[in-house]
Amino acid sequence: MSEKLNLLKELLGEVEDLNGAASVLSWDQNTYMPKGGSEARGQQLATLGKIAHQKATSPELGTLLQGLKSEFAAAGSDSDDAALIRVAARDYEKAVRVPPDFVAEQALVTTAAFQAWAEARAKSDFSIFLPHLERVLELVRRYISFFPPADHPYDVLLDDYEPGMKTADVRTIFEALRPRQVELIKAIAEQPQVNDKFLRRKFDERKLWEFSAETARGFGYDWSRGRMDKAPHPFETSFSINDVRITNRFEAQNPLATIFSGMHEAGHAMYEQGIEFAYERTPLARGASLGIHESQSRMWENLVGRSLAFWEFKYASLKRLFPEQLDGVGAKGFFRAINKVEPSLIRVNADEATYNLHVMLRLELEIALVERTIVPKDLPQIWNAKMKEYLGIVPPNDALGVLQDVHWSYSSIGYFSTYALGNLISVQLWEKMGKDIGDLEAKVRAGKFEALLSWLRAQIHRHGRKYDPQALVLRVTGSKISPEPYVRYLTDKYSEIYHL
Amino acid sequence: MSEKLNLLKELLGEVEDLNGAASVLSWDQNTYMPKGGSEARGQQLATLGKIAHQKATSPELGTLLQGLKSEFAAAGSDSDDAALIRVAARDYEKAVRVPPDFVAEQALVTTAAFQAWAEARAKSDFSIFLPHLERVLELVRRYISFFPPADHPYDVLLDDYEPGMKTADVRTIFEALRPRQVELIKAIAEQPQVNDKFLRRKFDERKLWEFSAETARGFGYDWSRGRMDKAPHPFETSFSINDVRITNRFEAQNPLATIFSGMHEAGHAMYEQGIEFAYERTPLARGASLGIHESQSRMWENLVGRSLAFWEFKYASLKRLFPEQLDGVGAKGFFRAINKVEPSLIRVNADEATYNLHVMLRLELEIALVERTIVPKDLPQIWNAKMKEYLGIVPPNDALGVLQDVHWSYSSIGYFSTYALGNLISVQLWEKMGKDIGDLEAKVRAGKFEALLSWLRAQIHRHGRKYDPQALVLRVTGSKISPEPYVRYLTDKYSEIYHL
Repeated sequence: MSEKLNLLKELLGEVEDLNGAASVLSWDQNTYMPKGGSEARGQQLATLGKIAHQKATSPELGTLLQGLKSEFAAAGSDSDDAALIRVAARDYEKAVRVPPDFVAEQALVTTAAFQAWAEARAKSDFSIFLPHLERVLELVRRYISFFPPADHPYDVLLDDYEPGMKTADVRTIFEALRPRQVELIKAIAEQPQVNDKFLRRKFDERKLWEFSAETARGFGYDWSRGRMDKAPHPFETSFSINDVRITNRFEAQNPLATIFSGMHEAGHAMYEQGIEFAYERTPLARGASLGIHESQSRMWENLVGRSLAFWEFKYASLKRLFPEQLDGVGAKGFFRAINKVEPSLIRVNADEATYNLHVMLRLELEIALVERTIVPKDLPQIWNAKMKEYLGIVPPNDALGVLQDVHWSYSSIGYFSTYALGNLISVQLWEKMGKDIGDLEAKVRAGKFEALLSWLRAQIHRHGRKYDPQALVLRVTGSKISPEPYVRYLTDKYSEIYHL
Repeated sequence: MSEKLNLLKELLGEVEDLNGAASVLSWDQNTYMPKGGSEARGQQLATLGKIAHQKATSPELGTLLQGLKSEFAAAGSDSDDAALIRVAARDYEKAVRVPPDFVAEQALVTTAAFQAWAEARAKSDFSIFLPHLERVLELVRRYISFFPPADHPYDVLLDDYEPGMKTADVRTIFEALRPRQVELIKAIAEQPQVNDKFLRRKFDERKLWEFSAETARGFGYDWSRGRMDKAPHPFETSFSINDVRITNRFEAQNPLATIFSGMHEAGHAMYEQGIEFAYERTPLARGASLGIHESQSRMWENLVGRSLAFWEFKYASLKRLFPEQLDGVGAKGFFRAINKVEPSLIRVNADEATYNLHVMLRLELEIALVERTIVPKDLPQIWNAKMKEYLGIVPPNDALGVLQDVHWSYSSIGYFSTYALGNLISVQLWEKMGKDIGDLEAKVRAGKFEALLSWLRAQIHRHGRKYDPQALVLRVTGSKISPEPYVRYLTDKYSEIYHL
């Protein structure tokens, strides 16, 4: 038995090594690679991907997993080995359903779709992207056809990002959430707006970078097992539990984004750094789902990083760096400014009160596309109508509307809702953490983040993929994923800021 | 035929992709990787190496090469396809002789040997390294035994770094060279020494870095297909003809080393950037041998970079950066200082007049170890005796003596002589280039490096591994590798500096 398990770990370890190597190549591609390197890099990544897929779907691995599954059938849910076998078997069973030819075709189609999307967005011309999106959607439907019929075809897609989650469940959650958020936004709109003009002043990039790095260190990001580099889009990536890196960016029009992106990516990274080291080089050594992952990044970015308590702790040191820019602004004024609510066109720049509405819009369109109740060519018009309905604003062009996100060109359909689920989970965890370890606000105000991180480590991080995401939320908080805590949190926060 | 050739290119391309990926991982390991990442990185590299070896020795590849070799037997030496088949077949035939188990054992032994070497050097205690070196040498002898008997067993090792080169040939070349260099050094020692004290002053690292980058750009290094990063040891590495990177370092005790290391690595890199793009993703897309490679780096570092003509061109801009450090020193004085001859203990810091003697010492010891005419435990004593004989100085400890170089711990036995061969070849090429394109000194003095680079591109770079190194030297210069031009060059240069 132990011999079979060792062989399993060796086979899975090779796949992990190949995926880890590919992640290093992608990280380099996004940070330091000279532009001349891109063609060869594409080929190197394709070869690594092909070999990793061959190894991840080898009959040897399948037979081994089959045998181990029966041997470990009786093991309890706390057995690491049983969890490894279960997770590896699930990955395997999904991977073997998808023919290698399909994977290769999808790679070609999405490469072309990405280029078309970039051009379409630059020219704000949806017609350039349309035929590619149609091809992506055809492939998505073929992908769904490889799997057994589900309650809803979209379930198949959702399951890749949020294992076990059903379309019907997400809809139920979102339908409870949407009217509450719309109502809140309306109430806020009737109040006098907060002043955030000073946030558009000139801030020195290097100083912001140092502040961001120092903040991540304060939260508990371990720099001996990570680093932060500049990239066009901030992201977190991991090649090992002991090598988890983040990237960040600087935008002159929105300089403080560097601080909040740094917090967000550090939140993701601390999750990966906190996984049980015994899981290294196995498929357990990742986050439980994108939703759980996002709960960590959003918690550090929003529940900590956009709280008054945090800025009562940290504002003086920011002001020391930027005395002119923040002249005449106190911690409270700063807190209000960074939490200004304003319906806006672009999801990634949306405030906490409006963010989920952007996500819901996308989820509804994706489901309708999969169901064929809408066709791709009508997307711009439907997008704009929904923006009007949910946020009361209409994009002046498709670049600021339906073309804003890269996901569809990558065929990442099923992904968006995890952003909103992450927000909900973050507050559920936050409430439970408060019950367990006491006044969180006081801890944040004192800069004592170790208590928070230790709790997250013990409850979430160390488990990696051992528990299914919904089982994990239930296990830790005693509840299913629910919108109530999030609505409560938003209402409390904005009542204070906007005197509702 | 073309179908077989395409399949060959596809199979070789996969191996190139894996090796390219491994090179990216090594580059990251030496530049940006946080220290936590090292264990996982070792495993990722081992997995990539194992898969690349499997693919490079697959029976499918062997059969294909066999068939193509007979089909292309009649093709002329100018056929790229025939060259690819010849080079790939040679690589294949060498690789299949070495059993995978041996490769794995060697990886283990050298990993341990490297750690022991680092400790031994730090403590200047040869006994720590001795048992590991003995194991390395046992494996080297086993490695030799996998190959057909050669004129000399050391030929097998040499061939890995300088294809086709024979031990007897290197000995003949070195035996002609040694007395001439020893004689030159003695003549120099009788002259008054030049003043180079100002080179030890404090130089700002960032400014040196910029000067080094600007110099590389001036030579013709293409920054859109490369970059320079900081690493503990300078090196050049390539992941594609369009992604060829260099690293550099800064040493407070020897600050100008940044400039000369930058030139050296840029010389290597321009070689790889200049390879015919049709060879991309094939084994032809590398340098012809380590000796030819070194001829390029040493040419830019020494024949250009340590020439009076270069500093007549460039000294003013260096002086603008460092007016205090270079106060009272003219271009001529600077030129003399950077060419100071002084027998010294450490190979990598040796001047041009003494450098080859360090190499010859190592070659003789390696041959004697392989022949078993000496035993490893006597190395420190023999090393010191040879240092006394060749350079007139004796290391005060083994860290500054037999333990200074990493190569033996890596099992890179057979490597050293390529450093000296590179010096010889660099001058042979330089002389021919002068005949072909006219007064090189005048071109260097005017900063017109394009003419030099174009000649090197056409004669050397673009061919990659198409021609065997010795055939290439003969083809380009009309002569075999010979010590005469180098002796002539050294004598002329130092006669001027030391008024011999």
